[in-house]
Amino acid sequence: MTKTRIERDSMGELQVPVDALYGAQTQRAVDNFPISGKPMPTQFIRALILAKAAAARANVELNQISAAQGKAISDAAQGLLEGDFMQHFPVDIFQTGSGTSSNMNANEVIATLASRMLGEPVNANDHVNCGQSSNDIIPTTIHVSAALALHEQLLPALLHLVQVIERKAEQVHHHVKTGRTHLMDAMPVRMSQVLNGWAQQLKANIGHLQDLLPSLQALAQGGTAVGTGINAHPEFAARFSRHLSQLTDVQFTPGKDLFALIGSQDTAVSVSGQLKATAVSLMKIANDLRWMNSGPLAGLGEIELQALQPGSSIMPGKVNPVIPEATAMVAAQVIGNDSVITVAGQSGNFELNVMLPIIAHNLLSSIELLANASRLLGDKAIATFKVNESRLQEALSRNPILVTALNPIIGYQKAAEIAKQAYKEGRAVIDVALEHTDLSRSQLEELLNPEKLTAGGV
Amino acid sequence: MTKTRIERDSMGELQVPVDALYGAQTQRAVDNFPISGKPMPTQFIRALILAKAAAARANVELNQISAAQGKAISDAAQGLLEGDFMQHFPVDIFQTGSGTSSNMNANEVIATLASRMLGEPVNANDHVNCGQSSNDIIPTTIHVSAALALHEQLLPALLHLVQVIERKAEQVHHHVKTGRTHLMDAMPVRMSQVLNGWAQQLKANIGHLQDLLPSLQALAQGGTAVGTGINAHPEFAARFSRHLSQLTDVQFTPGKDLFALIGSQDTAVSVSGQLKATAVSLMKIANDLRWMNSGPLAGLGEIELQALQPGSSIMPGKVNPVIPEATAMVAAQVIGNDSVITVAGQSGNFELNVMLPIIAHNLLSSIELLANASRLLGDKAIATFKVNESRLQEALSRNPILVTALNPIIGYQKAAEIAKQAYKEGRAVIDVALEHTDLSRSQLEELLNPEKLTAGGV
Amino acid sequence: MTKTRIERDSMGELQVPVDALYGAQTQRAVDNFPISGKPMPTQFIRALILAKAAAARANVELNQISAAQGKAISDAAQGLLEGDFMQHFPVDIFQTGSGTSSNMNANEVIATLASRMLGEPVNANDHVNCGQSSNDIIPTTIHVSAALALHEQLLPALLHLVQVIERKAEQVHHHVKTGRTHLMDAMPVRMSQVLNGWAQQLKANIGHLQDLLPSLQALAQGGTAVGTGINAHPEFAARFSRHLSQLTDVQFTPGKDLFALIGSQDTAVSVSGQLKATAVSLMKIANDLRWMNSGPLAGLGEIELQALQPGSSIMPGKVNPVIPEATAMVAAQVIGNDSVITVAGQSGNFELNVMLPIIAHNLLSSIELLANASRLLGDKAIATFKVNESRLQEALSRNPILVTALNPIIGYQKAAEIAKQAYKEGRAVIDVALEHTDLSRSQLEELLNPEKLTAGGV
Amino acid sequence: MTKTRIERDSMGELQVPVDALYGAQTQRAVDNFPISGKPMPTQFIRALILAKAAAARANVELNQISAAQGKAISDAAQGLLEGDFMQHFPVDIFQTGSGTSSNMNANEVIATLASRMLGEPVNANDHVNCGQSSNDIIPTTIHVSAALALHEQLLPALLHLVQVIERKAEQVHHHVKTGRTHLMDAMPVRMSQVLNGWAQQLKANIGHLQDLLPSLQALAQGGTAVGTGINAHPEFAARFSRHLSQLTDVQFTPGKDLFALIGSQDTAVSVSGQLKATAVSLMKIANDLRWMNSGPLAGLGEIELQALQPGSSIMPGKVNPVIPEATAMVAAQVIGNDSVITVAGQSGNFELNVMLPIIAHNLLSSIELLANASRLLGDKAIATFKVNESRLQEALSRNPILVTALNPIIGYQKAAEIAKQAYKEGRAVIDVALEHTDLSRSQLEELLNPEKLTAGGV
Repeated sequence: MTKTRIERDSMGELQVPVDALYGAQTQRAVDNFPISGKPMPTQFIRALILAKAAAARANVELNQISAAQGKAISDAAQGLLEGDFMQHFPVDIFQTGSGTSSNMNANEVIATLASRMLGEPVNANDHVNCGQSSNDIIPTTIHVSAALALHEQLLPALLHLVQVIERKAEQVHHHVKTGRTHLMDAMPVRMSQVLNGWAQQLKANIGHLQDLLPSLQALAQGGTAVGTGINAHPEFAARFSRHLSQLTDVQFTPGKDLFALIGSQDTAVSVSGQLKATAVSLMKIANDLRWMNSGPLAGLGEIELQALQPGSSIMPGKVNPVIPEATAMVAAQVIGNDSVITVAGQSGNFELNVMLPIIAHNLLSSIELLANASRLLGDKAIATFKVNESRLQEALSRNPILVTALNPIIGYQKAAEIAKQAYKEGRAVIDVALEHTDLSRSQLEELLNPEKLTAGGV
Repeated sequence: MTKTRIERDSMGELQVPVDALYGAQTQRAVDNFPISGKPMPTQFIRALILAKAAAARANVELNQISAAQGKAISDAAQGLLEGDFMQHFPVDIFQTGSGTSSNMNANEVIATLASRMLGEPVNANDHVNCGQSSNDIIPTTIHVSAALALHEQLLPALLHLVQVIERKAEQVHHHVKTGRTHLMDAMPVRMSQVLNGWAQQLKANIGHLQDLLPSLQALAQGGTAVGTGINAHPEFAARFSRHLSQLTDVQFTPGKDLFALIGSQDTAVSVSGQLKATAVSLMKIANDLRWMNSGPLAGLGEIELQALQPGSSIMPGKVNPVIPEATAMVAAQVIGNDSVITVAGQSGNFELNVMLPIIAHNLLSSIELLANASRLLGDKAIATFKVNESRLQEALSRNPILVTALNPIIGYQKAAEIAKQAYKEGRAVIDVALEHTDLSRSQLEELLNPEKLTAGGV
Repeated sequence: MTKTRIERDSMGELQVPVDALYGAQTQRAVDNFPISGKPMPTQFIRALILAKAAAARANVELNQISAAQGKAISDAAQGLLEGDFMQHFPVDIFQTGSGTSSNMNANEVIATLASRMLGEPVNANDHVNCGQSSNDIIPTTIHVSAALALHEQLLPALLHLVQVIERKAEQVHHHVKTGRTHLMDAMPVRMSQVLNGWAQQLKANIGHLQDLLPSLQALAQGGTAVGTGINAHPEFAARFSRHLSQLTDVQFTPGKDLFALIGSQDTAVSVSGQLKATAVSLMKIANDLRWMNSGPLAGLGEIELQALQPGSSIMPGKVNPVIPEATAMVAAQVIGNDSVITVAGQSGNFELNVMLPIIAHNLLSSIELLANASRLLGDKAIATFKVNESRLQEALSRNPILVTALNPIIGYQKAAEIAKQAYKEGRAVIDVALEHTDLSRSQLEELLNPEKLTAGGV
Repeated sequence: MTKTRIERDSMGELQVPVDALYGAQTQRAVDNFPISGKPMPTQFIRALILAKAAAARANVELNQISAAQGKAISDAAQGLLEGDFMQHFPVDIFQTGSGTSSNMNANEVIATLASRMLGEPVNANDHVNCGQSSNDIIPTTIHVSAALALHEQLLPALLHLVQVIERKAEQVHHHVKTGRTHLMDAMPVRMSQVLNGWAQQLKANIGHLQDLLPSLQALAQGGTAVGTGINAHPEFAARFSRHLSQLTDVQFTPGKDLFALIGSQDTAVSVSGQLKATAVSLMKIANDLRWMNSGPLAGLGEIELQALQPGSSIMPGKVNPVIPEATAMVAAQVIGNDSVITVAGQSGNFELNVMLPIIAHNLLSSIELLANASRLLGDKAIATFKVNESRLQEALSRNPILVTALNPIIGYQKAAEIAKQAYKEGRAVIDVALEHTDLSRSQLEELLNPEKLTAGGV
């Protein structure tokens, strides 16, 4: 049995674990929401604490709280971040739709710590939450936590993956393989062209994510309860952003229209949509790797991924493409997370969207999953695979589709006849072409050289 | 310039094309909703007209309209169905959320035709719509049209596909191929086992769809405006269902709770979810076919799908798996249609869901697409593919994973060593096993026979 | 620094924490998959352990392992379940797509415990995993864990919610309120009709979930690596199911076609689709509650939900509908979880779907969230709300739409004129009707009595 | 019975309607794909024809075809666009995944027309398709058609909607209403603040769509079959883009990496994700309008939307918010269309995504639906609604939440007590505050003036 103490809020008294830094409202939320058993994401709580420190500094400058109170709040916040702070943040993800319970949790925990430091009461609502409402600080925290996670985790991870791919592309440049369209044998491509295509997919995603950063770094703070800024100093938003930028090394700005930023979660929806697009790219890359690695004998067998663990509890010697599989599962999860955010985004009414906690949860989950999977995919799959040159050569050498290169000389119709005969008779296309055209063997060898065909042109 | 006549409704006068069978309210809807340019689905309008005929018969029995009026309405409805009725139903899918415009369109068109037949005015609201509200007839029509489409289109198509697959399974029973898990070579399977697995996937879907039919055949009719049945005779629902069952040969019943059937679209959501599950099964089957057909040389090349059209505008002789591709696209579309229905289903408030037209549109689209794709997939892909036995044999003969069969005798660890050595040295597993175990060649041949291994067992 | 010991598997040696019950393969997985930081769901691991106990019992009966080995395995499994077993199952959700790492984790932990009990080595692969492959035990565990969660958590929770609603419906039967269609004032309904409609929505969902139970309780076990049952005794599947049924009090059966059950995750897709449908129902109910509770002054104000916590960190005295909000967020999350399962389900190839871990994670998450939210919605929102009768009466008394009841007597057109005049002049509809019809005041009072109008009829 | 003529392609002969401009391959596709009954979107075919004209001009410049051939092709293309061209493009949406059938349809139709003009044969493959493959021209056409639809339809429609909203905001600036968070009464807001918030939501979406235009206007053209550009002149891509830009007045450029643009559909996925975000914004705006308009008596009744059509077939005088409803349905459809594109995008393998036709169909559908709904929402709902000032005033005057304004003076705790007492006793908050604070009535009137409170500040 946990020892408890009595706390009170505007609804009356209740029992709180005796050692808890939080107070009555956090405890009410713990009691009210036994739903998922999972707390709000660490990245979210971290950003919320940082926002409280920034708010305290702004409030001191604007004479809303005393310098001593502000210092205590700020120090308490910073101190929290240096320890295992999540133990103090037990509120479930599935709580009040505004995230008020998490805001009050932060207010209460920081107020307790600040009071201890200061030696006099620091009030959770009047001091820690000064100039704020859950309705601006929680949307702000969604933006801040997602922006930090993008800057600190996902964008570097994607850039790392791009670099790994591009380095690998240089290493495998000399390998030429059969291209495939509709899964069917098509014209040859260089292995480096395939990899550089992947790199470009990721670079485009990075660019699109970066395009969204200014929106994400524009904050709802200053709007307070409904967007009008009631009870916040007119300069609060600007000073808050400045302090938060200093604390985080990311440039935050006050939003252009606080009604839009509180009444909707449109930016989160846009960012999530682009995270989903990134997931779609990773799914394609992961699947290409899985298929290139398939076999080793009854599959395509073009590459061999690094063996990381025994593949089967029953089939000895089996090695599976586990990192691309994990990556593909991450992609599927991010697609589903985006569905949650979409449903949440379109559920808003009037002056506040009240699906904020699940927007935070799914958005940060997507960013973290994509970041971790991207690093693994680069380091444990792409950087380390070996190319099975003999399989590539074997397939290339007997591909009748190479006849495509003769189209400009002999026309599509005649080329089709040659290809069909080569397929049917199982003969090399060059031999059939020799019979059906005026071209010499050396001309044909030149025209049908797979390596040259990867350079395109007429 | 279209010649027009003047019509009026409760909001006043407006111009209607002089030859139009419809009246003022249809015209208002045409003017109000220039959105998609697409009318409500034919199957929906057909079911709505059938419902109007059933309602007229019920109303005559209950003395709500005269026998002559009822006959005229019923005859008008039946007559419409025999011709090109869609020309009279121009209202856009994206209209009022209750589908009232489509209901009034039907009321007006039938009233015009019935009036002509009867030689005296039959009123769209008071006679054709007698005892009904858009709020019960449109949910009813969603259920009726979907039930008819399931009975007439999808379930027979899926059964047909099952039969084609099972017949093909018998034909290809003797072919043994390399099983694949994680896309990697695994233990052998019979081609018939693969196909019968597909058939069972589809049979399970058929069963789950059939389980939903009683809910789908339970109708909102009789609830009228808000579920209370205001202005409908207490026996109307039962008689309506009876007449509709006679007209359609499908057994419809009055719903248990009309508030649930009008206030929600839960049945449509459940049915769509199961259609999506069917799409997921078809996606898997289509992709297995595409991969088995891949190559022909640089892919798996296990089967050869029937060539239906030239595959490429540039690569002569290329043949692509177009029917499985079309099927996979159908599956993707049905998954998206289900998203629409999900968003629509969760958007309802109070006594009426007002996303009925898009629920109808997407639900009927899913059923039709799945039905047509299933037939094509059976007839133009599965029934007609050829097996490339030499490729199957070549892959089987050198698969070290067969060593799995030795686990019970020599243990997993030792079996793994044998498999790895066989992979590494490119030797037949039987030769390596001969060196590392006490088993004789004939014992090993018996134990490692791929065909026997498909029968399972220790 | 954690003290470690050396372990080895078929790929070689590695370091494992000295006290860990698990061995080399679990450790490889821990090293390979630092992705989400979250382990597989507790319910999944519990079902996996139960399945290992059932397998051991079946294997003893079939003489695949010794009675002593079987007892040790079974006792070890049962013992694990009595303690805090999750500490031994650290493998990330995002791992190999077959869940082999989790299977080997269970095999290793149980082998360690069983070896200790028995005093001689029990092998993870040859004994604990005897007659099994990850490829059948993991699909089996998905079905078992979901079936148990449905039987133990969701179905009872939904039934509880139905009972709470039906009990409340009796209590509020005498309250009549303005029905709303298109959010606009419509004909009156009883509060009990609204609630019973919700109850019926849930009962339909319960029925549809129950219809899926036979599919969910049909298991892949016995198929082993690819569905053929290689290395499993022909009677293993039946005996396994019997023992598992005894251990769980849920009736499990061998699946009809093991290729379908291993090669696809169709049942999970169907069940998830129906969970999503249940979420859609809960979203509708939660939103109806939120809107009925809205205000209290500038909203509909029809009911007052129990106050559970202060609603705002800035607006004193504000109380928010937090339980319906949490429920709505649960619904949104379940819709997204279904997207994940859909993408995962359609990603399968050949003899194994390799998105099993995220299917397990999202399926069990959906069941748990729906169960917990359903109980809370019943107990903390529906059971305890108060009806604001004066607001209901005020709205009813001046609703011109009541004129609908006169349609059968005076026709739609004339009724429309009366309604419009009443709206325009802000007068009671009865007064306007008195002027425009031959009906007496007492006739009109009878015809327009809101309470009578909820009984429907002509 | 249609009269037919005999046509032939590389697979042999078949019958084509005697008057058809198309040839054998189109006819094969018509026969092969009786699936949806719906042709590819008009906007797609239009862009494809424009691309053919641009290709012909580039090919002439590069001496790939004769000037006469080029002129004939270009003139034929332009001529087609001036007439009812869709009659010549019967191929179903659900066709080969590369859209090759639609490409050949365009090649055949244009070849027929160009041959007639020129008086000598122009070949569909060798001349019209010169330097192209379906694998670059179809991805190109997706980008071009979507870019044109954005420039010509959606962006102007969204800008129009923004202008309508901002104009309306000026008109309704003087109206102050009760803000709502969690659907509960909150601090007051100006009607103009609400509308300007919507406008900003839309402006952010416009900005995000514009950010994606450079990616969308970068084309796959020049990559031909697999991205290498085989059979295309090295300068073809640049010249093609230049000519297409001239023909369309939109600036198109060759893509940076043609492998990425052919092997994936990532840009379409990103654009669709942002269209979905726009849909989410519109859903929020449409729902706010619906709720503000709700009632008129038993709802919020804050505004009155223009009456466009009778609202009910049974309830006379009912007027429904049909335009916001249609808009909300459009939003739901666009969300589902995005699901299709997501599933399609993640389905790609190797050198070609083969879900191109449904990507085109759903992307263009989303753009068109959003464009048309945005115009209607502006013109028929927002521009024309009336404000019900008396209802706004009535709600504002008795809102105890106004006490929030006293927090900085009396503290949150005391303010909460005042608010609760006011609620409980049904008294004006000012009267209660007068008893519990030292503030004078005039001070309180100043502090609690709703209009002033919308200006925010401490």
